[in-house]
Amino acid sequence: MEFKVNSKVLEKLLSKIIPAVPSRTPMPILENFLFEIKEGALTVCATDLEIALRSTINVAADSDIKMVIPARLLYDILRTLDETQIKFETEPNSKLKLTTENGTYNLSYTSSEDFPAIPAVNEDKEINIKGDDLKKSIDQTSFAMSKEDMRPAMTGTLLEFSDDGLKFVTTDGHRLVKLINKNIKSEIEEQYIIPERAISVLSKLLNENEVKIYLSKTNISFHIGDLEFISRLIGDKYPSYNSVIPLENENLLKVKTSDLLSTIKRMGLFSASSTKQVKFSINKNSLEVSAEDIDHGSNAKENVACEYAGETMDIGFNTTYVNDVLSHVDGEEVIFKLHSPTKACIIEPSSAKENEELMMLLMPVRLNN
Amino acid sequence: MEFKVNSKVLEKLLSKIIPAVPSRTPMPILENFLFEIKEGALTVCATDLEIALRSTINVAADSDIKMVIPARLLYDILRTLDETQIKFETEPNSKLKLTTENGTYNLSYTSSEDFPAIPAVNEDKEINIKGDDLKKSIDQTSFAMSKEDMRPAMTGTLLEFSDDGLKFVTTDGHRLVKLINKNIKSEIEEQYIIPERAISVLSKLLNENEVKIYLSKTNISFHIGDLEFISRLIGDKYPSYNSVIPLENENLLKVKTSDLLSTIKRMGLFSASSTKQVKFSINKNSLEVSAEDIDHGSNAKENVACEYAGETMDIGFNTTYVNDVLSHVDGEEVIFKLHSPTKACIIEPSSAKENEELMMLLMPVRLNN
Repeated sequence: MEFKVNSKVLEKLLSKIIPAVPSRTPMPILENFLFEIKEGALTVCATDLEIALRSTINVAADSDIKMVIPARLLYDILRTLDETQIKFETEPNSKLKLTTENGTYNLSYTSSEDFPAIPAVNEDKEINIKGDDLKKSIDQTSFAMSKEDMRPAMTGTLLEFSDDGLKFVTTDGHRLVKLINKNIKSEIEEQYIIPERAISVLSKLLNENEVKIYLSKTNISFHIGDLEFISRLIGDKYPSYNSVIPLENENLLKVKTSDLLSTIKRMGLFSASSTKQVKFSINKNSLEVSAEDIDHGSNAKENVACEYAGETMDIGFNTTYVNDVLSHVDGEEVIFKLHSPTKACIIEPSSAKENEELMMLLMPVRLNN
Repeated sequence: MEFKVNSKVLEKLLSKIIPAVPSRTPMPILENFLFEIKEGALTVCATDLEIALRSTINVAADSDIKMVIPARLLYDILRTLDETQIKFETEPNSKLKLTTENGTYNLSYTSSEDFPAIPAVNEDKEINIKGDDLKKSIDQTSFAMSKEDMRPAMTGTLLEFSDDGLKFVTTDGHRLVKLINKNIKSEIEEQYIIPERAISVLSKLLNENEVKIYLSKTNISFHIGDLEFISRLIGDKYPSYNSVIPLENENLLKVKTSDLLSTIKRMGLFSASSTKQVKFSINKNSLEVSAEDIDHGSNAKENVACEYAGETMDIGFNTTYVNDVLSHVDGEEVIFKLHSPTKACIIEPSSAKENEELMMLLMPVRLNN
């Protein structure tokens, strides 16, 4: 069997597939690409059993084959080669010979039998979404996924289809983010949880191109141009997050996002590393933000311009969490909706986007004084 | 005591000094800046006992003081602040109060008594060198410094003043680099060894500005604009490197630098990780470069265009070392001067720069066949 391909064309293909190759794995076969040639089409795929990537190009081949080739070695050869024609030839003893104008490279390939099957995702139900919309939605919500494995559902991003729109929800118990894309409405309520690794790889793959999404009970598939990205879904039930979202938080604090974010970054330097606590002292049109690190004998306070007409309140937060929220909410101004120092606080951009609704929830911390 | 300073002016000053603050040290006082105010001039310095950085700006101060302030904390406050006026006030109990338009920050300062003295370097003998020339010289030679502490002299870069010019020499026993800047000639032969950390910090500080160098027996000082950089010198004697440089290597192999470098990068993928061996098979106007990894059952060979009229020869090198040399030699073409497969090989750019002489030496490795 032999086939010929332009080095740059193959390099471009492999660069799309390599993100699914695990860097460390107890299953060495996953460190390979699966090459499948069928009627002049070369399909390359890779998987780490959680996610998989697959794409196809045309090549000049004399017969069909399925084989498994060391992924990093092949990709690194191609990355360092100038544009040239490469001939791939299979030889006895599972040897694969690559020939270019100036060089010959012999490597070992393996039979494809042991390579795990990539799950098929039924393409009956198709959802279309703009790639940059999807990217923005997952980037704005992914930071709040839980890092703890205790409750597997919370380690992923919830995709919830509803008649309000397509909801992206993440929470780790201390904060919660809910973003609704109102362009994509669905009559049937359905929930799917995408694992963290899939979310982070997906974010890098997305661009302005249209994306088609297909779903099964256990897997989700994204078609991005000529690339297919498949991820396992988390099978657990997502916590019923709506019950923790307060409906009436009547005290509204409006601040410039960048002002408060800048203040919070400095307070992070002064808050004790054990608690990361920052205090908001809120009065009529007055916000003082302060932090103290008793161990280092340092403290700081700043006044931040605001609009506030609610009850006088001292409320504590974790600086890291406030920093995360303010870094991911877009809009020049942000509103903190408060009820009391012990109840959840809602943070929203002061002017909502058309067809989008973003809500972030932050649990306060008890002030130590 | 109080003084006032513009936040961006102070941030710029601290950004120049912070590279000398060690990130981990058994002496916590080194994690501070030394602030010294004298007649309206604020001098800030930091040191890790090996290198030191110092610079001065004017401030509005009501009296003189010397004090020691947590470096990272102060620098991070300034980095996140928008441009503003800052008032520094010393308060009882070693407290330092910073006040801006919107905020107040209290931190602890320490007495300057325990801060190590920065060595004074006599300014009698001054050497002037263009900053970008110096940067290029140390960047071209520093890669060959030894990483092993067994022979301390070889862990640094040798600066040798001679009537040929100013020489930069590095070696780790496997390769040696010698670069001569012929613009700076000296009647007296003198050798100074600059430690690795100083070389790497210095490289980042240098720009096109003129640099003044001052030397003492134990220290070297670089004046770069308004910044002073001081480094300890390594006291050991540098090995007499001239004796290892072969005088007559009559077999000359001329290749395009980028061609061979590209080939070597691919051979690095195929050479066994234990030996990193690559073989050059040289014939009349013919160079075949090959590598083999028996453990992975892979091998590769490439033909590289060359000019060669010397003896037929098979010679082995370490791919990493050849890669290093070719990455740091400038010039489109490079000449390998060879004698035999067991003798040192000299590598030089095929056309020398005006007023500069660059020579790299590489020890071959024994071929296993």
